[in-house]
Amino acid sequence: MDYEENIQRLGLELPPVPPPAGLYQPVVETGDIAYLSGQISKTATGQLLTGRVGAERTLCQGQEAAEAAALNVLSIIRNLIGFRRFLRLLRVNGYVQVAPDFYEIPQVLNAASELFLRVLGENGAHARSAVGVASLPLNASVELEVTVALRGSEKEG
Amino acid sequence: MDYEENIQRLGLELPPVPPPAGLYQPVVETGDIAYLSGQISKTATGQLLTGRVGAERTLCQGQEAAEAAALNVLSIIRNLIGFRRFLRLLRVNGYVQVAPDFYEIPQVLNAASELFLRVLGENGAHARSAVGVASLPLNASVELEVTVALRGSEKEG
Amino acid sequence: MDYEENIQRLGLELPPVPPPAGLYQPVVETGDIAYLSGQISKTATGQLLTGRVGAERTLCQGQEAAEAAALNVLSIIRNLIGFRRFLRLLRVNGYVQVAPDFYEIPQVLNAASELFLRVLGENGAHARSAVGVASLPLNASVELEVTVALRGSEKEG
Repeated sequence: MDYEENIQRLGLELPPVPPPAGLYQPVVETGDIAYLSGQISKTATGQLLTGRVGAERTLCQGQEAAEAAALNVLSIIRNLIGFRRFLRLLRVNGYVQVAPDFYEIPQVLNAASELFLRVLGENGAHARSAVGVASLPLNASVELEVTVALRGSEKEG
Repeated sequence: MDYEENIQRLGLELPPVPPPAGLYQPVVETGDIAYLSGQISKTATGQLLTGRVGAERTLCQGQEAAEAAALNVLSIIRNLIGFRRFLRLLRVNGYVQVAPDFYEIPQVLNAASELFLRVLGENGAHARSAVGVASLPLNASVELEVTVALRGSEKEG
Repeated sequence: MDYEENIQRLGLELPPVPPPAGLYQPVVETGDIAYLSGQISKTATGQLLTGRVGAERTLCQGQEAAEAAALNVLSIIRNLIGFRRFLRLLRVNGYVQVAPDFYEIPQVLNAASELFLRVLGENGAHARSAVGVASLPLNASVELEVTVALRGSEKEG
């Protein structure tokens, strides 16, 4: 699976690795698991996609925010983990900032899941939890927390 | 520990494996850990248990929703992981859709924790986080995200 | 790294291990990973730090609550895992009970992250997710869910 080729073919531009918004690391590893910090909906040009989906923002805008957050995740996987060490996604926790009566959270997050599958192929398949929350850092519409499996050093060099 | 016997003795009926509500897998494994997708409060007959606990729903109804979500988790463990490969629960993240002034989230989730302990015995013991959220997919009252330890292939055949 | 020395030097008093608020374990281990249950903002004297940050509580009070929750996490690491078996923090999930228009969640959680770094040094570095939620158990202002790496038995005795 040539992930770089997929990125090119899809015409995607991965943003630079987002600097942490606090006193934490973007990714921490143990054994063959990498824990990524939550990534919010900020575009490659630095624009924050903000607001509550179902209130100031539409479902469609929520999906754009989910894609922006997913691109930040992919940037961390490519630049901090490295595609060669990346084995597969494990779990995606999707937090969507919502109006209290907005329940189409899976539809918002599907935009991120689809992007992972398009770029990472079958290694982008993942377990997922979807939650609608009161607020997110910097008023972001979407935050994605991803857990990743790494190639074990015992499996290959 | 004969889990099937416990299920029968308790008169429980496990629902069929719930189809994912989006572009994700119900369970993804790495090494000896299985990551389950969030399971919402949907009964074996397909009825969604919806609404905010502390508003449209009582504590007692919240507990019924927690049990329904727990039965879906057990269905995934039995049918997709298999009781023979299941070693023990690790962590349960419980999300309860609440009225803003409802704080008895642990009491809601205890109904799920108790069910896990009754069916899985000491292997059902788990770490837990409890959070009250603004909204959940499909207006579900409860969502449970479970992480499971698998029997290592190095430990037995 | 002498964690006890750091605790003394900083003049910190770790609370006793908080009893679980429900039918769960404070910590569950598998292999070289320990999953801690969510720890809320309760002080060593048993005082609950409650209320929504950005409404009844200020940012500064939210930071005090984050520190209180972090001390409970450190108590579990010291007393139930043991500093000798502790290798490093992996991920911190920070849930802050907020007013709907409060977005400075990272600033609240930085107080916890800084405490981890001061006591645990470089082994206190962690990935982090920050979420603002509708309500937390017992009306707590902050809940921290921590995942920890343990020294592998294959690495030392």
